[in-house]
Amino acid sequence: MTALAWSLGAYHPQGLLQRLDEGVVIGDGGFVFALEKRGYVKAGPWTPEAAVQYPDAVRQLHREFLRAGSDVMQAFTFYASDDKLSNRGNESSAKYTCRGINDAACRLAREVAEEGNGLVAGGLSQTPTYLSGMSKADTQKEFQKQVDVFVENKVDFLISEYFEHVEEMEWAIEVCLKSGLPVVASMCIGPEGDLHGVSAGECAVRMAKAGAHVVGINCHFDPFITLEGLRKMKAALDAAKIKVHLIAQPLAFHTPDATKQGFIDLPEFPFGLEPRICTRWDMHRYAREAYDLGVRFIGGCCGFEPYHIRALAEELAKERKQLPAGSEKHEQWAGGLRMHTKPWVRARGNRQYWESLRPASGRPDCPSMSKPDAWGVTAGDEILKQKKGATTDAEISALAQKKA
Amino acid sequence: MTALAWSLGAYHPQGLLQRLDEGVVIGDGGFVFALEKRGYVKAGPWTPEAAVQYPDAVRQLHREFLRAGSDVMQAFTFYASDDKLSNRGNESSAKYTCRGINDAACRLAREVAEEGNGLVAGGLSQTPTYLSGMSKADTQKEFQKQVDVFVENKVDFLISEYFEHVEEMEWAIEVCLKSGLPVVASMCIGPEGDLHGVSAGECAVRMAKAGAHVVGINCHFDPFITLEGLRKMKAALDAAKIKVHLIAQPLAFHTPDATKQGFIDLPEFPFGLEPRICTRWDMHRYAREAYDLGVRFIGGCCGFEPYHIRALAEELAKERKQLPAGSEKHEQWAGGLRMHTKPWVRARGNRQYWESLRPASGRPDCPSMSKPDAWGVTAGDEILKQKKGATTDAEISALAQKKA
Amino acid sequence: MTALAWSLGAYHPQGLLQRLDEGVVIGDGGFVFALEKRGYVKAGPWTPEAAVQYPDAVRQLHREFLRAGSDVMQAFTFYASDDKLSNRGNESSAKYTCRGINDAACRLAREVAEEGNGLVAGGLSQTPTYLSGMSKADTQKEFQKQVDVFVENKVDFLISEYFEHVEEMEWAIEVCLKSGLPVVASMCIGPEGDLHGVSAGECAVRMAKAGAHVVGINCHFDPFITLEGLRKMKAALDAAKIKVHLIAQPLAFHTPDATKQGFIDLPEFPFGLEPRICTRWDMHRYAREAYDLGVRFIGGCCGFEPYHIRALAEELAKERKQLPAGSEKHEQWAGGLRMHTKPWVRARGNRQYWESLRPASGRPDCPSMSKPDAWGVTAGDEILKQKKGATTDAEISALAQKKA
Amino acid sequence: MTALAWSLGAYHPQGLLQRLDEGVVIGDGGFVFALEKRGYVKAGPWTPEAAVQYPDAVRQLHREFLRAGSDVMQAFTFYASDDKLSNRGNESSAKYTCRGINDAACRLAREVAEEGNGLVAGGLSQTPTYLSGMSKADTQKEFQKQVDVFVENKVDFLISEYFEHVEEMEWAIEVCLKSGLPVVASMCIGPEGDLHGVSAGECAVRMAKAGAHVVGINCHFDPFITLEGLRKMKAALDAAKIKVHLIAQPLAFHTPDATKQGFIDLPEFPFGLEPRICTRWDMHRYAREAYDLGVRFIGGCCGFEPYHIRALAEELAKERKQLPAGSEKHEQWAGGLRMHTKPWVRARGNRQYWESLRPASGRPDCPSMSKPDAWGVTAGDEILKQKKGATTDAEISALAQKKA
Repeated sequence: MTALAWSLGAYHPQGLLQRLDEGVVIGDGGFVFALEKRGYVKAGPWTPEAAVQYPDAVRQLHREFLRAGSDVMQAFTFYASDDKLSNRGNESSAKYTCRGINDAACRLAREVAEEGNGLVAGGLSQTPTYLSGMSKADTQKEFQKQVDVFVENKVDFLISEYFEHVEEMEWAIEVCLKSGLPVVASMCIGPEGDLHGVSAGECAVRMAKAGAHVVGINCHFDPFITLEGLRKMKAALDAAKIKVHLIAQPLAFHTPDATKQGFIDLPEFPFGLEPRICTRWDMHRYAREAYDLGVRFIGGCCGFEPYHIRALAEELAKERKQLPAGSEKHEQWAGGLRMHTKPWVRARGNRQYWESLRPASGRPDCPSMSKPDAWGVTAGDEILKQKKGATTDAEISALAQKKA
Repeated sequence: MTALAWSLGAYHPQGLLQRLDEGVVIGDGGFVFALEKRGYVKAGPWTPEAAVQYPDAVRQLHREFLRAGSDVMQAFTFYASDDKLSNRGNESSAKYTCRGINDAACRLAREVAEEGNGLVAGGLSQTPTYLSGMSKADTQKEFQKQVDVFVENKVDFLISEYFEHVEEMEWAIEVCLKSGLPVVASMCIGPEGDLHGVSAGECAVRMAKAGAHVVGINCHFDPFITLEGLRKMKAALDAAKIKVHLIAQPLAFHTPDATKQGFIDLPEFPFGLEPRICTRWDMHRYAREAYDLGVRFIGGCCGFEPYHIRALAEELAKERKQLPAGSEKHEQWAGGLRMHTKPWVRARGNRQYWESLRPASGRPDCPSMSKPDAWGVTAGDEILKQKKGATTDAEISALAQKKA
Repeated sequence: MTALAWSLGAYHPQGLLQRLDEGVVIGDGGFVFALEKRGYVKAGPWTPEAAVQYPDAVRQLHREFLRAGSDVMQAFTFYASDDKLSNRGNESSAKYTCRGINDAACRLAREVAEEGNGLVAGGLSQTPTYLSGMSKADTQKEFQKQVDVFVENKVDFLISEYFEHVEEMEWAIEVCLKSGLPVVASMCIGPEGDLHGVSAGECAVRMAKAGAHVVGINCHFDPFITLEGLRKMKAALDAAKIKVHLIAQPLAFHTPDATKQGFIDLPEFPFGLEPRICTRWDMHRYAREAYDLGVRFIGGCCGFEPYHIRALAEELAKERKQLPAGSEKHEQWAGGLRMHTKPWVRARGNRQYWESLRPASGRPDCPSMSKPDAWGVTAGDEILKQKKGATTDAEISALAQKKA
Repeated sequence: MTALAWSLGAYHPQGLLQRLDEGVVIGDGGFVFALEKRGYVKAGPWTPEAAVQYPDAVRQLHREFLRAGSDVMQAFTFYASDDKLSNRGNESSAKYTCRGINDAACRLAREVAEEGNGLVAGGLSQTPTYLSGMSKADTQKEFQKQVDVFVENKVDFLISEYFEHVEEMEWAIEVCLKSGLPVVASMCIGPEGDLHGVSAGECAVRMAKAGAHVVGINCHFDPFITLEGLRKMKAALDAAKIKVHLIAQPLAFHTPDATKQGFIDLPEFPFGLEPRICTRWDMHRYAREAYDLGVRFIGGCCGFEPYHIRALAEELAKERKQLPAGSEKHEQWAGGLRMHTKPWVRARGNRQYWESLRPASGRPDCPSMSKPDAWGVTAGDEILKQKKGATTDAEISALAQKKA
């Protein structure tokens, strides 16, 4: 392994689909959680106006992922649709505009991608418009505005991700395909399928039939539950004799107790998830299991920090024929601990130690599993209708009562 | 609270001691853990050559802490002594030099400090020289080399931190005082005291008698155990009728199970600590308890991310008469969740919810507490003698056997 | 509630089926675990020769269950078939005989039943003969020997319980029906169904079609998982338009982590199950949920102590129009704590306190969930073939290796 | 080990002190918790009128302990003082009388002791009289009434146990000594000492100086915390050059989180302690550690079932030169599992498996540690004054409010 050189993504000359045909593509981690911790994204609206406001912070995070081994720079355009930028008291749309944010995000991603040999992806995600039960035309209008900016910026491919309902995803794919670019379609679902009751397998088949070149799952569940979902997708695609590539971009949080809607329903979301954060060793296992399952686009979503991505790239170093540049600062399997001053810490400098460790929470007055909220409401339900105005105190009280 | 303006540390015109006399000073978080996750520091040696190699990454982290509310920019000089830079196979000393690293670190800290109104601190920490049982003169020579660079760079004060033995700390204070700068002295001990059996209270008294202007504790234990140690320090100082300021810069990891040597001895150190990471709400509680105890220099060490520092600054906003600039992206007590699309998440947008939450680990096959290594060896013991050469495989095997 | 009189089972004059038609019947708890703790049963073979050897101990346990509210005295005949009494080095068959044990057990049960107004049940369970892949005739011969003794002793009904394969259960029911007595058929399965892959619902339908008057589940899973299985049974019976009564006799151990074969596969079985023991409050919840589901024969199996049965009877006191005699020593919902000397314990003397308590394990270095053995072998597999001779050391080594 | 014969305590012809000089004496387990589960004792008052009401149940439990290896039959006289029998609405005193209960309890203990070669002990415990702040004369009057009955019944020795204040214990010892019988003095304290702030070591010295022949600790803490307390007692006795025997009779519940007043303060006391119950393997470890510490009277208190006592006797079989009669049904270190039908259970039939197992709680929504009530009130405080009348609802509400 040590014979492999550190590399800033230099070995891939081709586009996404060729890369997937020939090897494995490492994605990046989710920006909204990472930048929330750094102080540039507000939890709640989760919108990406930082691409305009704080370009240095966004650029730095791209660089860290590139250095960690990411082959893809996803432009920071998550939830950058006009209807989301102006939902429930968020005024980002007015100040920064959908066009402005998407444009800035694409430029930042491209700038860093060129420092290595990364691909740039423009991303769409589900919309308040759909959630509120509005029409296909209304929903697609939101998507189209973002795609227009992506095409102008000559992104390498489109990624339509974080959709809870396959119907909305199909509408998104339809819009994306008109661009002529490769389309990745990734839903935020688990093994139980989408929120309207469509099974995970059926979701995969419908995304593929809608024309997506790569299909899969991101966010909402931990790596191992996500792979369970992908196993179902693969089985259904095989049964339907459809050949597409698979993508996995799960959470870096353990979610064994999550129900259908994933970590959103866990009581710890979003400000108490710390004890659930995956270790780098969890990520080694995830990368190997994903690869063995046939997934070739392997990345992360919320909770992934650069060191998590580096663990993916280190686990798959042989397959990728290189180590990531960031391994300069990380000898595989804890080898760096051999330089520690304390001898009992040096004794931990081996793979067996870390693979068998079951890390304690240090929280003896906390449980290991939570009871999720599981309100069972889906797109179109009255209570999910979105609005521009801020949520009032009275509305919050009513919700809190309903919750208790 | 909402009437307070966001501010990039603009209200403090004076030096450290005046600021401490008049109000509270928020420290920053530890750089080695944060930059290890970002890919710029190697766990094991933990040395700060990134100050030369990757100045953008270091500058960005300074900026994030400034934005989060830090009044102090600690130059990234932790473990930047010549003997540490060349210990056990680490070759940073040769490539970057002690002088080079310390100098670059000071410049970066000053650059960012001037963007707000921050103070710059140069930092010393314990040395392999002392651990190996060498003389006072040898040890002080290592300190002097760093202090010379700090003085040249006109830092605002010196911080001598992360010492396990009060004897070495006294030697460091002696060197620091010659600079004429204010001296902060902070040991990495818990309520049980230093590794040579000196009680926490006695350590405080000895640091103060040695001339330190501010004394206290950093690293090795969680905020609440650290405050237990400070309670003992305060009692001893009061009993000795000594008036100095107190500093707390604990871990952002829960360590109820740690013994005398702190988190180093926990089996999860350093690559399995994730489930122990403190939430922002833990930090609110820490800030309040520290303030109530009379601690006026309140910051963090390993594990602290910018959002942890922001929580300190938000908890003490009234005392500091300002909110940190980073609160632009964080409405107090989860208020931002009111903009979330899902109603049950909006219902979590209140203080009572987060204060009473006991977050689950999502790890049902893991314990909540660990059994620490506790080899009970201290400075001068044969097994702690350091060396320049890399640790051999045979040495590692011998250690692993001793451990089992 | 307090208006209800304490009663030693005096209100039921009729036989089992009439009682079930008119109200609820409380079963007893499992004898083998309770008597193992008292020193009269050997874990491993789990055979009931104590009915001959230590009649006082067996009688006392019957009395305690009667006093706790049990309407049924199950004769202590579990695993009292000849092939089990002489399996793998057990020599109980030779010393006490199948006939002798079954006969003594029936007499003890009847003696105590007459002290109240209890019913006596003779019980069959699955056989080594079937597990070893032998014929229907061979298997039924084992059952017949026991049934002959039950008939001679004029038991009130037969209970064929603890079967992992519905096929063997059908053979047992066939033998039982010839006695002309009411037949209860209860499998030790969970929601996933029997070990040959027959679903729980299908098992219920097949037991009913084979002629059982009461069908259901005992042992292997905790009360709540057992009720999940019963929910499936009920649905299948309803779909098949079959009307039979339902029985639940689950473990008094929490088994959320058990797989198909139940608690046998948990690493804690049988000597480390203590932390899983249910509280009396768990039993209140179980009784209520079982009753609401339509289950009318509600009892317990391994792990149930008399106080667990009393909790069932107390929860259903209104439905049964009486409190059990044992409530003389137990005021509902912790009322007796009002007599405690310590005021903070008196403050716990109320229902809300105990219903909301989440009891700690006091074991911070233990996990909450285990990884079960799950070898996936079923009746007829070579490795399951039983033999008379004792297990050799070599065989144990081979198994231990296979396990690791 | 297997060469040792099963024995019903036949090897000890001498009295307590000779037995302790020559070897180890195994105590029995606590009756109130065991009989509460069986339905014969009411939690709250915890008084022993069952000795009169249900002699068969009490006799059976004595027999089980004898069979398990107990050398001592403690007459079931716990809390059988007149003031306790009529405290807070308990009317046992009126119906059964102090004299009647103590007399019946002694006869039952003697009857069973003679079935083996057991010793009979009459027991005193702390009184409501003392707790309410009444005089030495008043308190000693309560003790004298019980001792009179013990002397009439020719018990072999007296055991003054379950005292939280050493002062009251001294008064009890004074009364006991007048009988001329050997006196065992055992406090329900932990390593922190008695509730009036007297250290554990000082308590031991004071009990010995008061004339007790055996001193030690029972109840309130788990075996391992109890042994910590005994270690302190031994050190203080050694320092004072006093030679007496030591007794340990701890809980069979894990209590790492208990504070000074022990398990009474844990929120799970007394109806939610199940997950804390010790395994038989915990008891092996306890017996060995107690023996190695020099404790020679080794028994149990609340939570101990016969199988826990048997584990003590099995661990110390070599020292006692016999196995208990109950080992007939328990092959050491899980050997009986070799007769199990399932091969993976047979594979668990060895010592290493059970010694290394960390048993899961099966309760993923529960913590591992609790926050104790710790009201910090001791004998004489107004709130601890006892009374004959029942606790009123208003009093309970006031307490609940104080607690919250």
